[in-house]
Amino acid sequence: MVQAPIPVVVNGAAGKMGREVVKAVASAEDMILVGAVDRSPEIQGQDIGEIAGCGPLEVPVVNDLQATLVLATQERGLPVMVDFTHPDSVYENVRTAIAYGVRPVVGTTGLTKEQIDDLAEFADKASMGGAIVPNFAIGVVLLQQAAVRASQYFDHVEIIELHHNQKADAPSGTAIQTAQLLAELGKSFNPPMVEETEKLAGARGTRTGEGIQIHSIRLPGLIAHQEVIFGAAGQIYTLRHDTSDRACFMPGVLLSIRKVLPLKSLVYGLEKLL
Amino acid sequence: MVQAPIPVVVNGAAGKMGREVVKAVASAEDMILVGAVDRSPEIQGQDIGEIAGCGPLEVPVVNDLQATLVLATQERGLPVMVDFTHPDSVYENVRTAIAYGVRPVVGTTGLTKEQIDDLAEFADKASMGGAIVPNFAIGVVLLQQAAVRASQYFDHVEIIELHHNQKADAPSGTAIQTAQLLAELGKSFNPPMVEETEKLAGARGTRTGEGIQIHSIRLPGLIAHQEVIFGAAGQIYTLRHDTSDRACFMPGVLLSIRKVLPLKSLVYGLEKLL
Amino acid sequence: MVQAPIPVVVNGAAGKMGREVVKAVASAEDMILVGAVDRSPEIQGQDIGEIAGCGPLEVPVVNDLQATLVLATQERGLPVMVDFTHPDSVYENVRTAIAYGVRPVVGTTGLTKEQIDDLAEFADKASMGGAIVPNFAIGVVLLQQAAVRASQYFDHVEIIELHHNQKADAPSGTAIQTAQLLAELGKSFNPPMVEETEKLAGARGTRTGEGIQIHSIRLPGLIAHQEVIFGAAGQIYTLRHDTSDRACFMPGVLLSIRKVLPLKSLVYGLEKLL
Amino acid sequence: MVQAPIPVVVNGAAGKMGREVVKAVASAEDMILVGAVDRSPEIQGQDIGEIAGCGPLEVPVVNDLQATLVLATQERGLPVMVDFTHPDSVYENVRTAIAYGVRPVVGTTGLTKEQIDDLAEFADKASMGGAIVPNFAIGVVLLQQAAVRASQYFDHVEIIELHHNQKADAPSGTAIQTAQLLAELGKSFNPPMVEETEKLAGARGTRTGEGIQIHSIRLPGLIAHQEVIFGAAGQIYTLRHDTSDRACFMPGVLLSIRKVLPLKSLVYGLEKLL
Repeated sequence: MVQAPIPVVVNGAAGKMGREVVKAVASAEDMILVGAVDRSPEIQGQDIGEIAGCGPLEVPVVNDLQATLVLATQERGLPVMVDFTHPDSVYENVRTAIAYGVRPVVGTTGLTKEQIDDLAEFADKASMGGAIVPNFAIGVVLLQQAAVRASQYFDHVEIIELHHNQKADAPSGTAIQTAQLLAELGKSFNPPMVEETEKLAGARGTRTGEGIQIHSIRLPGLIAHQEVIFGAAGQIYTLRHDTSDRACFMPGVLLSIRKVLPLKSLVYGLEKLL
Repeated sequence: MVQAPIPVVVNGAAGKMGREVVKAVASAEDMILVGAVDRSPEIQGQDIGEIAGCGPLEVPVVNDLQATLVLATQERGLPVMVDFTHPDSVYENVRTAIAYGVRPVVGTTGLTKEQIDDLAEFADKASMGGAIVPNFAIGVVLLQQAAVRASQYFDHVEIIELHHNQKADAPSGTAIQTAQLLAELGKSFNPPMVEETEKLAGARGTRTGEGIQIHSIRLPGLIAHQEVIFGAAGQIYTLRHDTSDRACFMPGVLLSIRKVLPLKSLVYGLEKLL
Repeated sequence: MVQAPIPVVVNGAAGKMGREVVKAVASAEDMILVGAVDRSPEIQGQDIGEIAGCGPLEVPVVNDLQATLVLATQERGLPVMVDFTHPDSVYENVRTAIAYGVRPVVGTTGLTKEQIDDLAEFADKASMGGAIVPNFAIGVVLLQQAAVRASQYFDHVEIIELHHNQKADAPSGTAIQTAQLLAELGKSFNPPMVEETEKLAGARGTRTGEGIQIHSIRLPGLIAHQEVIFGAAGQIYTLRHDTSDRACFMPGVLLSIRKVLPLKSLVYGLEKLL
Repeated sequence: MVQAPIPVVVNGAAGKMGREVVKAVASAEDMILVGAVDRSPEIQGQDIGEIAGCGPLEVPVVNDLQATLVLATQERGLPVMVDFTHPDSVYENVRTAIAYGVRPVVGTTGLTKEQIDDLAEFADKASMGGAIVPNFAIGVVLLQQAAVRASQYFDHVEIIELHHNQKADAPSGTAIQTAQLLAELGKSFNPPMVEETEKLAGARGTRTGEGIQIHSIRLPGLIAHQEVIFGAAGQIYTLRHDTSDRACFMPGVLLSIRKVLPLKSLVYGLEKLL
């Protein structure tokens, strides 16, 4: 028996990430793009395939999410909505999707803790699956999981994150998140072997409460890179992830679309779907 | 209640690895060295601590394994024997240990598949724990486990192993083992995107039946390094292990000593104990 | 005294590289774009700034190189022509430029040895400077120069080049060129310390006549990377260049424009201008 | 005509570095060890080859430098003295060598600026060559020279140095020296593209007056490593040196022995001899 393709509606379809999702869904054999919602007035009615640069898909851009979801559900049953819109509309979008029986896969950032809890409760009541995913890069999640496992056996670890020099904040959110995941083990890292002295202040980077050192490099020519280095007598174990293109998020988006189908509640983080 | 220290007999105590084990056991708070067996005639009766370079331990080198095990069992009960001897004696050593109720932790290489099966059966009958560990480097095992996990989500992977230029064979045994572990998934890696042409033969390295490419670098100044590189559109995920000293095996030896105590059978590979 | 900006004509201005050059020249304070030549019929007369994505420059695309050079020379005196066109037109373009007193900076590939010699002779007679540059990436040239210098002191070296898996040939042209530059020293690299055995054919990569080993990695997610690794007892010296964007060639293009001005002959290779 | 081998006296021959020098000189075809001076009373008269672990050399350890130099000069003419002794005796050793017509190659640290100037003057008067070399690792010097060259073309650079966690001070002396060499160009590095914010203090490392960022990593399993990373739009150029063994200094020692022969004055730094 051939499985029917999964119907997908992309909300924010003409944005940078939305267009990538449109292309990825269009080339996935087990999915079909059934709706493209975007508020930009100048592209209403245009074929989203042309906008995304993957050839005609016969799916026009519209701006009414609700109507699109209703129509998709009637025609196709149980679609998934991928949301890459704006912090100020994502909460309403997700509520709308759940209300109409559509599973949300959310890449839009900016949901507060309270909003996430509220949406989770709403999904629970409706027994409706969904996923809120702050980072769709599978490699980052795999790296973090491997790092958590390694931290059980290594007591010494430092993190280097490297980004282009137009990134204003340091360390990166991903590096801080990695350090937090390692910290959950409850152990103290990098017990000092000698009395360390910084001849130049800041040389040793920053140190979290659990003793993890983090270093941030900023250079033009870099994109987004993270390196977690574990050390023990006679050995070094290094995990590194390099991002060079937005395309790196698409395997995670497609995987999320597939994995939310059987779910009955809202999950947070790609690691819950791996 | 304070736990009594684990009594440990080291067989092959004056060899390169044996001396490292002696030092490691001597500095582990939860262990006590109770016997040092070595066949070298010129060091019989000498203190193994002096030979290993960690100061006097009041444990003389002897050459009678059986007597040492009997005595250790009587005085201390249930010791562990760490074996770093020779391929031609290891099988007998392990049988002897099991026969005398001593748990073997075996780092000596050269046991055949049949010998391992036979020892496993013998240990089963005696309900006696033990471990045969071809590679005690925890970092290598963690890398291989992380690689197996990543290979579920990445279809493209190449392995680079780098060793000093006095290593004769290529690829390294560890790299081949990593490729075999990835192959167990049953999928075919590195589906070609273009018709590849080697302008210079061998440039693309070797390719296993499952499509995994392996490259071997040999240079003075290198020691022992392995890199597994996964690629997907827009991202690279790299796992690397660097060995610089025999000391890197000791955490794995100590962990094995601790973990065989409650076992009732013989396990193969450090990964079974992590 | 303020220096007058250098007038630049871009030939092949609407191509991928041409558009980058247009943007780079437009943002260089010491240059002014005075002509944009491109054969594509559908964009004739359009502003090249709009096409290149850097805002209006009031320089329309035209298809007559000769007329553009004549006009530019009359109005501005001594301009430079950057050529990123096609292998079948580049020779004529360069002759035309020299004939009209315009200095060529050529990034177009495909000139034969005979054509280059001929153009060099033609430039000599006209005492006209110019540059043919197969690779404008300054980092690559610096890496190669540093490698040549290191090869005087290190006898062991291997090259790893890593590219996306849509590159068909291996090793890369740049890696081959690096090996050739090292070979010019006339010494034999990587004298074997042991009898090497390839358990899997190709594992050790390819080996040039001078003994330099080259390894080619191909993975999606990679872009264009080269690593030259020198080894000696107790030390490793590594040079690595990573390319992530066509923008990396622009500093080399701008530098070439500036450096050809005082020249009286045609030079080959960015290294002649550094 | 076969060149006579260069006679070499090693002062501090039984120390860690001295023994390495003995081995290196013994295996260099163009050198001959003619004297081994060391103050340690318990090894007087023993063969230095046995002590160094390279087999008998028929050169006994003695403690009288002056007598050794006199004898070596009479028998062999013009020898070279390699000095790896102590900060408190090195100045006198070098004066003695020059006074007796022996060329000093000095690896001992601790000479003050004044002492170096004084020795240089003394060597000048005697028209005697010599070398004071704070770091004999050729790879480090090559890296620094390549970095200085690259810094003419790249405006953005960060340095990462990685050492074992028993090193107390950060950044390493070598990293500071590299930054100073780059600073000599007189330009300001890493002009900020955005207003940077450290969410965790120290994350961005330390910043020299010229804007060079330095980051220090400390982990067991590391030995001594330095990485200089240059960035520009679309490209990264990385220079890395890894030290794994004291042996890495020997090519620099042998090269210094050969290069001081024709000198008529005292030079400082291996770079003066490359």
